[in-house]
Amino acid sequence: MGIRVFTFIGGAEGLWRVTRNSVIAGEPLNDIPYLDIREGDLREGMGSQWRLRGVVGHLRYTCRDEKDQLASRQPPLGRPESTRAALIPIRKSAAWWELPQDERRAILEEQSEHIRIGLKFLPAVARRLHHSRDLGEPFDFLTWFEYSPGDESAFDDLVRLLRKTEEWKYVEREIDIRLTRVG
Amino acid sequence: MGIRVFTFIGGAEGLWRVTRNSVIAGEPLNDIPYLDIREGDLREGMGSQWRLRGVVGHLRYTCRDEKDQLASRQPPLGRPESTRAALIPIRKSAAWWELPQDERRAILEEQSEHIRIGLKFLPAVARRLHHSRDLGEPFDFLTWFEYSPGDESAFDDLVRLLRKTEEWKYVEREIDIRLTRVG
Repeated sequence: MGIRVFTFIGGAEGLWRVTRNSVIAGEPLNDIPYLDIREGDLREGMGSQWRLRGVVGHLRYTCRDEKDQLASRQPPLGRPESTRAALIPIRKSAAWWELPQDERRAILEEQSEHIRIGLKFLPAVARRLHHSRDLGEPFDFLTWFEYSPGDESAFDDLVRLLRKTEEWKYVEREIDIRLTRVG
Repeated sequence: MGIRVFTFIGGAEGLWRVTRNSVIAGEPLNDIPYLDIREGDLREGMGSQWRLRGVVGHLRYTCRDEKDQLASRQPPLGRPESTRAALIPIRKSAAWWELPQDERRAILEEQSEHIRIGLKFLPAVARRLHHSRDLGEPFDFLTWFEYSPGDESAFDDLVRLLRKTEEWKYVEREIDIRLTRVG
């Protein structure tokens, strides 16, 4: 499993048009009309207002049975009918990162059912998680979701369920950017 | 817990003089007379032949009881008597990174006793682990060890024990650089 870096470029152009930019917690992220996603560590984009980078790599909390369930049910990105998307950048608190691995796992899954909740929304919602923390970025994670217009309310249910969990008490910054594919 | 980036610069000058540069597995790393360690992501050093970067951050496998034991026994870096050191850059195989978290943890500790073996050599051997994988570096980890001249043979025991473990079957590149502090 290799490392793949992606750069999310918010600015004047891109494949995705921003329809909403909501602050869930912490500092906002500047409004931008379009978002583009490029593979690689890109230093700048044409007319970009911000640039967020993240790495897709190995699983950090998922156990074997969960990995197998995800693998059998996870849809790919880029489905033609997935014309809606969400980019949710998140930063967790210092208290979260101070916890040992077993306590973070217990909060994430045994208490908050993060993986189990996500599984309920498969295959409607395709997802890719990017890790940003080791890159010294302003967020720890960038989560990218794609779904069809008819599944937007299901996606709203997914994020509402997650935001009520014990795990989310450790989220100190969260932005919810909704998008529609252009063309 | 913040993120701290360190750059290891191998070249013509530095606080540490290289006394040995051994290939344990995989491709060698160019011989260099000195090593310097700087906090920050430094793009180059004076006369450097190579530059390795890593991030000190949260614990990836350690449980609460292990974290508490480590915290009570781990010595700091920079002890005056610690005039010997080792830099051991390691890359693990794709097969390792494909494993889910529970199976990596089981190999690392329940089968290989990585944390338990390390604890046996405290406080003689001070250690700092740097994560490099998400930075797209040639190694996944850079481990830095400091100890007194009298503890060099204990340190040799430590690495010999670890290299015999199940975990080490997943190590595909490993360099063992030994150093003596200058002045």
